[in-house]
Amino acid sequence: MRIASFTAGGTAFYGVIADAGAIALSPDFTHWPTLCDVMAAGGLNDLTQVAKGRPVTHTDFTYDMVMPDASRILCVGVNFPDRNAEYKDGSAQPKYMSLFPRFASGFTGHNQPLIRPPENHTLDYEGEVAIVIGKAGRRIPAADAYDHIAALTLCNEGTIRDWVRHAKFNVTQGKNWDRSGAMGPWLVPFTDPAQLDEARIQTHVNGELRQDDHVRNMMFPIREEIAYISTFMTLQPGDIIVTGTPTGAGARFDPPRYLAPGDVVEVSVDGIGTLRNTVEDEVI
Amino acid sequence: MRIASFTAGGTAFYGVIADAGAIALSPDFTHWPTLCDVMAAGGLNDLTQVAKGRPVTHTDFTYDMVMPDASRILCVGVNFPDRNAEYKDGSAQPKYMSLFPRFASGFTGHNQPLIRPPENHTLDYEGEVAIVIGKAGRRIPAADAYDHIAALTLCNEGTIRDWVRHAKFNVTQGKNWDRSGAMGPWLVPFTDPAQLDEARIQTHVNGELRQDDHVRNMMFPIREEIAYISTFMTLQPGDIIVTGTPTGAGARFDPPRYLAPGDVVEVSVDGIGTLRNTVEDEVI
Repeated sequence: MRIASFTAGGTAFYGVIADAGAIALSPDFTHWPTLCDVMAAGGLNDLTQVAKGRPVTHTDFTYDMVMPDASRILCVGVNFPDRNAEYKDGSAQPKYMSLFPRFASGFTGHNQPLIRPPENHTLDYEGEVAIVIGKAGRRIPAADAYDHIAALTLCNEGTIRDWVRHAKFNVTQGKNWDRSGAMGPWLVPFTDPAQLDEARIQTHVNGELRQDDHVRNMMFPIREEIAYISTFMTLQPGDIIVTGTPTGAGARFDPPRYLAPGDVVEVSVDGIGTLRNTVEDEVI
Repeated sequence: MRIASFTAGGTAFYGVIADAGAIALSPDFTHWPTLCDVMAAGGLNDLTQVAKGRPVTHTDFTYDMVMPDASRILCVGVNFPDRNAEYKDGSAQPKYMSLFPRFASGFTGHNQPLIRPPENHTLDYEGEVAIVIGKAGRRIPAADAYDHIAALTLCNEGTIRDWVRHAKFNVTQGKNWDRSGAMGPWLVPFTDPAQLDEARIQTHVNGELRQDDHVRNMMFPIREEIAYISTFMTLQPGDIIVTGTPTGAGARFDPPRYLAPGDVVEVSVDGIGTLRNTVEDEVI
């Protein structure tokens, strides 16, 4: 079951993606206005029941950011050991994970262009798995963490690198450019721990493999991310955690290999899908 | 006109605060479910018209975080020169401001307790002016910035200091503990530049003056905050910018003077009001 947000004929819908097209469920076949409302109501199972066997309603549509009204998106910073460097023995691992919020406005949808602004051209990709919380919790034990995940999706956590270091602390201004990243293509219900524990993240740029690692190699596993974050804030349904990107972003190359108009970036995880985006210069 | 969110008899309302009590406007006298909806619709003037002359509806109520559903709250870090130290001539001023998001869940309302969690007791205060955006814009010139402000409020940008430095970058986990800060007591419509340009922020703890400075002394003036932030993201009605705190937070003392249960913190700006909060240990 692939649950997506999309626009057709100028109207935004959410629904299900079938092989032949999109099946709109909102607003006629659900009483939840948005996918965030679905999550808040714990309605994902109901939604998938409603979707079964329905006919395709749209063959001409564009994908939107998968949860356009998500109000709390937390990203985990540097979370894979650099296999070439000092982290080999794990001794240099930081004690706590780095976390930063991103606003939904920083993400576009599948097959849409990432936007490179005129102010700075160091647009970079970061392929990641994102989890959507389905069950509220505070101080969630790591052992129970997966019980709180409703769905998975993919993220290209696109970044304007130069602006990440504008300020001494906090990467905010490099991480929140309008439509500099992407999230989607769709949500996949989380039903089996292997969907994460066996997940392998690959990022291709113009067909060239740039990032390739397994979720199980994360320094801070997803279970621990949920445990740590929920220590200080009550996780709520609809919250999204972007769990960390493997080495191999463009900034890691010498010289750096930033994205340019015409590039195609694909973030893939078996069982979730491929999030594909082009790159365009902003027109202002 | 003082526009507030409050709870009475178990129901959350927004409305207006009069000397004799609260005047509920939602849901009966407005078609906007929340104050964020009011802002999104540019409805603040309509709302104040509706409020005029209405009778008090509640004398027994508690204040909520002033815009409980605000989804984008951006805080400006260290933004006042330290009058005792190296910044006297301005030469050490950073080139760009530090920015970090906070979630609405990190704030409680006026007269409610700030919550000190059992995990860490370095709860600190930061008195600030917060602005609420009323008109969307991208790449807003500093000269036009005030045109985009709809309302002002106060913020105690309460912080768990030790957790601010958990990670090398990003203060996220020290700045987002549930109800560790407060925002309110109410919104005051922004109608005159002097409301900001002449504003003096004072923070008292148990009656002792701890912070005292003028908005005009900010290293990055509010006009520049709006210009800079809107460079990378389109500011939208309902967005909140917490503009920066004067020196004098508890962490600046030697030894630090953190907040403890029973303390009373008051953040005041003439023409806006006083945001008062007690401190309580979390019960888990």
